[in-house]
Amino acid sequence: MTTLRLNPLTDLLHVLPGADEAAADAVAQRQAQLTKPPGSLGRLEEVVGWLARWQRRAMPRLDQVDVVIFAGNHGVTAQGISPFPAEVTVQMVANFRAGGAAINQIAGVAGARLSVVPLSLDQPTADFTQAPAMTEAEFLAAVSAGFDAVVPGTDLLCLGEMGIGNTTAAAAMSAALFGGAGADWAGRGTGLDAEGVARKAAVVDRALALHADHLTDPWQVARRLGGRETAAILGATIAARRHGIPVLLDGFVCSAAAAPLARLLPGGLDHTLIGHVSAEAGHRRLVRALDRPVLLDLDMRLGEGSGAALSVMILRAALACHTGMATFAEAGVADGT
Amino acid sequence: MTTLRLNPLTDLLHVLPGADEAAADAVAQRQAQLTKPPGSLGRLEEVVGWLARWQRRAMPRLDQVDVVIFAGNHGVTAQGISPFPAEVTVQMVANFRAGGAAINQIAGVAGARLSVVPLSLDQPTADFTQAPAMTEAEFLAAVSAGFDAVVPGTDLLCLGEMGIGNTTAAAAMSAALFGGAGADWAGRGTGLDAEGVARKAAVVDRALALHADHLTDPWQVARRLGGRETAAILGATIAARRHGIPVLLDGFVCSAAAAPLARLLPGGLDHTLIGHVSAEAGHRRLVRALDRPVLLDLDMRLGEGSGAALSVMILRAALACHTGMATFAEAGVADGT
Repeated sequence: MTTLRLNPLTDLLHVLPGADEAAADAVAQRQAQLTKPPGSLGRLEEVVGWLARWQRRAMPRLDQVDVVIFAGNHGVTAQGISPFPAEVTVQMVANFRAGGAAINQIAGVAGARLSVVPLSLDQPTADFTQAPAMTEAEFLAAVSAGFDAVVPGTDLLCLGEMGIGNTTAAAAMSAALFGGAGADWAGRGTGLDAEGVARKAAVVDRALALHADHLTDPWQVARRLGGRETAAILGATIAARRHGIPVLLDGFVCSAAAAPLARLLPGGLDHTLIGHVSAEAGHRRLVRALDRPVLLDLDMRLGEGSGAALSVMILRAALACHTGMATFAEAGVADGT
Repeated sequence: MTTLRLNPLTDLLHVLPGADEAAADAVAQRQAQLTKPPGSLGRLEEVVGWLARWQRRAMPRLDQVDVVIFAGNHGVTAQGISPFPAEVTVQMVANFRAGGAAINQIAGVAGARLSVVPLSLDQPTADFTQAPAMTEAEFLAAVSAGFDAVVPGTDLLCLGEMGIGNTTAAAAMSAALFGGAGADWAGRGTGLDAEGVARKAAVVDRALALHADHLTDPWQVARRLGGRETAAILGATIAARRHGIPVLLDGFVCSAAAAPLARLLPGGLDHTLIGHVSAEAGHRRLVRALDRPVLLDLDMRLGEGSGAALSVMILRAALACHTGMATFAEAGVADGT
């Protein structure tokens, strides 16, 4: 029964476009002529190729960069897995709208447009130690909200989240998708002590046991253990691929939210990079499992899309070098060959 | 004899100002009130404290950010240690001035002012496998050029270099200051093959043997094994400390150029951070020896101040968060305590 209704989503995956390797090749050809030793801009050269490959343009653009934060509330907070009360989710949404959060400042420096999408904050998901977090209808509505938040024509999409309790959901999803127990994925979140982390790991283990018969299907992992905001991130990541928009993922929760796509479709996250590897314990492990490049490692663990937005500036510098540098011939510089 | 004339420089070191811990404490107090879990901005919080500590201001600024590139030519290129001809140094200086190099684009994105200081490019230093690279007069003139390039009132100084052959000089200086042989510090530079790297390591070893009796004095290391551009970077790093200007160092050559200061004065590089750890082999080892924090690791190995300038954007985002975020009280967000 359950698989049937999710079939339209799975069908959609099979018509997602692949990479434009000709555009990436054009980037590599230009890079070889620019006034620098070959390869000396390292990751900056690679990311321009990645932008070209997924924007499907030989000369990529970063004119319109969007940061979208999805917010959701989690019934699993009843298990005492966060030092912050669940009301903080709605308070932080107000803070985003008033311009007072870290992501507002970072998006401003990065020249990105910030949108906030609160998802039924007055209706927390079910406590996933007791039941699936979402019904199928709730899950599909959240995935659709993610789809709808992606604006075709955007040059780059940064995804972020806010949701008290959602590192517990991310730990549960990661364990379900990539193996391991709660203790392998549970971390301090917004500031748990060691006892709190142990409690969180036990909560994850109970959830894994309860849903064990359904976790080979990545859609079910996202529906049973995730939240509305993680479902929306999954939807937005799929929509971005469909519209030719490269995606910067943020930290642990955001990466875990998108991770089902890597399990559903080989190379399903190839149009994404991870902006920043979080200090939250599980993220480094998840990054290895996803095998996607990371741009920054600055010991941050905030969420809100902060790491994704921060890394936009790396892409802007990379693109400026690609478009603005002189070639050896233009500059009259000997090219070392 | 030689030590006598360098004494005025050594005397200068003893009157360099220390850190303003009260300013750093004020930053920490404000950070604790901002709408985020404590410490969740990681390195972004630390760098604001660092800026305050060395700008001597409780609310640091990044209004005037300077990137200064020093360029010099090296007699050791006669030993065949670079795939690029020495003429490229002057050609690249012209490219910097015409706006066609990577650093022009990166400085533009970072909102930094770029200056280029060519140092007697028609007079390469002596081949340091045969003689000291510079006379004392030449060395002092280059250090002075570095002093003069620092504009008091600048909020942040990024240092960079250009000089065909200068990764060989940096390897020799690093070995002299921190131990090890040529093979421990020599890397591919602008693109040597394995045979070239071995030749470069042997060149370093011959230089270390020739100058062995003089290398306990860091000034002599800088004069005998460095270049005019590395001497200028050392001078600029000292001048910046004197004027209360935090410094972003760049890659292997720039870090090696400033390294004598760490040997001359305990904490002598505390007013510096390393913008980017280079893919050039010796830099990671040098970073460990200097024990200074690194902001970026993007597999770059270009020099020109590119890694330093790129990391300015991290500082801008960090400062924007510090100055622009709402406090828990202002935003009406529960603070988790």
